[in-house]
Amino acid sequence: MSSVPSSASPGEIEARLARHAEAIEALLAALLADAAKPGETARPARLLAAMRHGALGGGKRLRPFLTAETARLFGAAPEQGLRAGAAVELLHCYSLVHDDLPAMDDDDLRRGRPTVHKAFDEATAILAGDALLTLAFEVLADEATHPSGAVRAALVSCLARASGLGGMVGGQMLDLAAEGRFAEGPEALPEAAIRRLQAMKTGALLAASVEIGARLGGADAAALAALGDYGRALGATFQVADDILDVESDAEQMGKATAKDADKGKATLVGALGLDGAKRERDRLSEAAVAALAGFGPEADVLRAAARFAAQRKS
Amino acid sequence: MSSVPSSASPGEIEARLARHAEAIEALLAALLADAAKPGETARPARLLAAMRHGALGGGKRLRPFLTAETARLFGAAPEQGLRAGAAVELLHCYSLVHDDLPAMDDDDLRRGRPTVHKAFDEATAILAGDALLTLAFEVLADEATHPSGAVRAALVSCLARASGLGGMVGGQMLDLAAEGRFAEGPEALPEAAIRRLQAMKTGALLAASVEIGARLGGADAAALAALGDYGRALGATFQVADDILDVESDAEQMGKATAKDADKGKATLVGALGLDGAKRERDRLSEAAVAALAGFGPEADVLRAAARFAAQRKS
Repeated sequence: MSSVPSSASPGEIEARLARHAEAIEALLAALLADAAKPGETARPARLLAAMRHGALGGGKRLRPFLTAETARLFGAAPEQGLRAGAAVELLHCYSLVHDDLPAMDDDDLRRGRPTVHKAFDEATAILAGDALLTLAFEVLADEATHPSGAVRAALVSCLARASGLGGMVGGQMLDLAAEGRFAEGPEALPEAAIRRLQAMKTGALLAASVEIGARLGGADAAALAALGDYGRALGATFQVADDILDVESDAEQMGKATAKDADKGKATLVGALGLDGAKRERDRLSEAAVAALAGFGPEADVLRAAARFAAQRKS
Repeated sequence: MSSVPSSASPGEIEARLARHAEAIEALLAALLADAAKPGETARPARLLAAMRHGALGGGKRLRPFLTAETARLFGAAPEQGLRAGAAVELLHCYSLVHDDLPAMDDDDLRRGRPTVHKAFDEATAILAGDALLTLAFEVLADEATHPSGAVRAALVSCLARASGLGGMVGGQMLDLAAEGRFAEGPEALPEAAIRRLQAMKTGALLAASVEIGARLGGADAAALAALGDYGRALGATFQVADDILDVESDAEQMGKATAKDADKGKATLVGALGLDGAKRERDRLSEAAVAALAGFGPEADVLRAAARFAAQRKS
């Protein structure tokens, strides 16, 4: 990472993401190696294979990229940003494995490959998700991630708050409820409720990716606040862009089934604002993310480019 | 806790457990209160209700009792032992919610009440388990649990290692495999493999309950090693006692379906050693747990009594 220049035009961001994705892939593969680590009795082969299936070989790795780039912005060692980013990605991957389950979104395809419960079975997929989630916290708490115990504990707190009852898992619950999965029937959510749902389901973890990078580098309260605004706007950009892509792109591009949101009665901003309104909102949010970084110099250009990438990406 | 004398006969242990269970219940209820905490957007009502169903109103609370009693042995503040114990119990409760799922053990009854997926639905039960697991780490990483960040990070590491791929989740995977759930068919495990499976599935978290208490109180390496021996022997005692109870007791006493192990082809020490052999092994393990505490004085009598209780309990 350190040999890459600190500024990046929007056009450079995809190449930079791809380079970073290789480093994350290698680290995730090392974390999911065959050999049991100290304190582990054994690593059951089927469970490990399912965890690898769920975590390796795909995805843009946007979340760990944000962690690593924010860590670099605040002068943290590249290895720290990479390790903490891997933890965030493990958390994200667990959420995909569980969201794809038959009882949840019932998806057969993810990143162009069978989902974990299709490639293995449902019980194995539940356990693989549980173990990926658990490993995320183990990685953050490890001394190799940061020498300060107080920082490591703060990273754990940040990730847990963003991903639990009051964050990502809670957002998934609201999403299922809005689909009409429970006795109450489907719910046509007002725009504000859709935004809240998306802020929890997608935005909280993206914002945490950024905050974790900033905390690795010892960012002060003002910087953390600015990056919080950036992360939340970026998360909202990402989600409305996802809603738009679900309508506009085909399954081959996305590597998963598309146009499913409308079929399922999912609460989306395309539904609330119309396609053109959603695109305007996406671009407004992306610029709000950029504006949140006004206090930073050109060294934050990569994060600015990431916000524009989140809006313009094609898959 | 602090008003209770530090020695306890085996006969006193149940009353002491019951007093402690009340304190844990109150803390878990507070952690699962309606109001969103700082950093949370909202607490979706259905998810919160399912988490409460899975975590409140039952169980002996043996794991948090071990954490609190070990913490007290090393002079930690009672609130610290209680909070860290609550985290261990949240982790245990998540594992029950997921293990009961239709794709896993498919149980309808737990602690005399419908399991979470029966009382709610399968998607909600998966998410409630995920959120309980996440909350466990949030509680450990919170400053209220211990003032030292290094200690908090060590607690997170300990719990994650005990409960993930190389511990509890891995043990559940081996258990399902031994039942013949996958293509390979049921596997008649040799005794050593059953012991390893049980050490991972049940023993690792019980041992972590003890280690977490010791770390709260700043136990030195020698004490940690002795308590590790104690915790592992206690965990093995607990599991073989459970196998015996499954054969000998009825569903009313246990609050869940019994005699299921044999029906499902579960790998148990009763199967490997016979009922009488399993009882001898249970008592041997319980005494090994007591022997591991030889270096401690009468202040460790509660832990000694807990090891005997694990062997002799009737439910």
